Amino acid sequence: MASSVGPSSLLRSRPWIPVDIGDSRFLCKSWFGRMQYHVFLLDGECLWEDQMEAEGIQTRAQELNRRLRASTESFFSHLVSVVIPFLTGSRHGHGTGSGPDHVTLHRAENHMTLRLKSELAGLPFYWEFHCCPAPVSAVCGQLVRPLLVMGGALQRQVDILFKLLQRKDAEIQDYRENGAQLTRGTPTTEHRIWVLPLLLDQDSSLNFSSDLSDLFSCIVSQLNPTKRKRQNSGQEEEEGEKGDGPLVEEEEKTGQMKGLDEGWNISDKKNLWDSVLNPIQEGNHVRKSEL
Amino acid sequence: MASSVGPSSLLRSRPWIPVDIGDSRFLCKSWFGRMQYHVFLLDGECLWEDQMEAEGIQTRAQELNRRLRASTESFFSHLVSVVIPFLTGSRHGHGTGSGPDHVTLHRAENHMTLRLKSELAGLPFYWEFHCCPAPVSAVCGQLVRPLLVMGGALQRQVDILFKLLQRKDAEIQDYRENGAQLTRGTPTTEHRIWVLPLLLDQDSSLNFSSDLSDLFSCIVSQLNPTKRKRQNSGQEEEEGEKGDGPLVEEEEKTGQMKGLDEGWNISDKKNLWDSVLNPIQEGNHVRKSEL
Repeated sequence: MASSVGPSSLLRSRPWIPVDIGDSRFLCKSWFGRMQYHVFLLDGECLWEDQMEAEGIQTRAQELNRRLRASTESFFSHLVSVVIPFLTGSRHGHGTGSGPDHVTLHRAENHMTLRLKSELAGLPFYWEFHCCPAPVSAVCGQLVRPLLVMGGALQRQVDILFKLLQRKDAEIQDYRENGAQLTRGTPTTEHRIWVLPLLLDQDSSLNFSSDLSDLFSCIVSQLNPTKRKRQNSGQEEEEGEKGDGPLVEEEEKTGQMKGLDEGWNISDKKNLWDSVLNPIQEGNHVRKSEL
Repeated sequence: MASSVGPSSLLRSRPWIPVDIGDSRFLCKSWFGRMQYHVFLLDGECLWEDQMEAEGIQTRAQELNRRLRASTESFFSHLVSVVIPFLTGSRHGHGTGSGPDHVTLHRAENHMTLRLKSELAGLPFYWEFHCCPAPVSAVCGQLVRPLLVMGGALQRQVDILFKLLQRKDAEIQDYRENGAQLTRGTPTTEHRIWVLPLLLDQDSSLNFSSDLSDLFSCIVSQLNPTKRKRQNSGQEEEEGEKGDGPLVEEEEKTGQMKGLDEGWNISDKKNLWDSVLNPIQEGNHVRKSEL
């Protein structure tokens, strides 16, 4: 059950993905290496955690599958192919596996078990994630701190957009007062009132949109100097990362963890803005004082 | 050390306030009732908690102040007058007390002690908050879930503002293409590029702005049905709340916990928007589909 620095650091940059298990919705973050894994499941009340390494995986696999005689490596490889699509929300696509036949959730006072059933070499294949509440330090590092930074960034963005709207309103008012007319059927715009309660969806805390998930991953990259150094240098981060297998690399290729160096913007607003400048490659072209 | 439902529920609606203690910055949330209190202190790594009731307070007060012969009530009253301004960031104002003479922070592996020194009736007065890591359920309920909802609301707000900007850009372009000129010295506006990295302040996670703090409190009111019911009915929420003393009432009067019913908007943008509609009293005047 011991954990090394490498996997924890790698897990930090993983995206949070909404996953439905039974009647419950979770935000899930997972990392699978070579004969080790680390899974977080967040529900409204608790952050649950299961992390295992080779020895524990072997013992649990044998206990749950007494008739199955596959090597631990084959067993783990099958587990990964079954569970990754399920935990990353890609169960029905990408050809990464068919997912488990059956998943059930069992809750106890201070414990939660996720039972999977699949098939390997024609025999039933069982696995259980035995989840305990994560330590508070993990909740703060994985969730609270990045969420606070994300809130601040979004708030600053809102402030900038408000000021921009104010300037556009002044320009429009000037045109109108000088008798300008719209000719292409363009509708006039008004000061639009929005009220925050309408934007709040109180049941939405675990519906983390992909936009927010991307933003969250960006922020975690920024908060994690080791990760940034690696992105900039193109080198491997730590010993623990070597030999993680194709799963990690594949996920990075999809851009889920793309860094801030790419000039990330919310909701891919490239069509709205003329272009997206890269502040690192091309210098800082955004003059905040003008907004 | 036992806690009742009342105080926990009341603490939930309290704002998070940045507080500097020694060289460390925390987000602090506190509730002081009649001979009981509950304090949360968040640093980058952990959410710390100290909650006590009458018996524990009396014992600790006697241990720390062997020469002081005041009644426990007088003692607690003095503690509250000293510590509230310190923990709510109003140390230098409002005439609510002068704050402690001296505050020091002592950290151990799984424990943090906050030592205060003040003066009562001409004698030195000591108090210590013995903080332990809060349970994960408290971190999720007090921070993670409201922060996730807040992120979602801010993201929706950003989306709406972007669409509004897009419409204003179309109107401005129409005027310009028809030869309209600006006459009052109003500057022309352009598509302004903003890049998220510039909005991220990675050291800002504990600088929770007052805007965000207000929004957070609003969200917590929404997430807490009991609290909303009370706001709507104007009645006391629970037995545990009765007799909380003037501190709680005073804080409510300042509007720090104002509810969504007031048509809350970020950064008090009333000057920008023509007015703020109350969706509950006047119906839903915001036609989201138009944005």
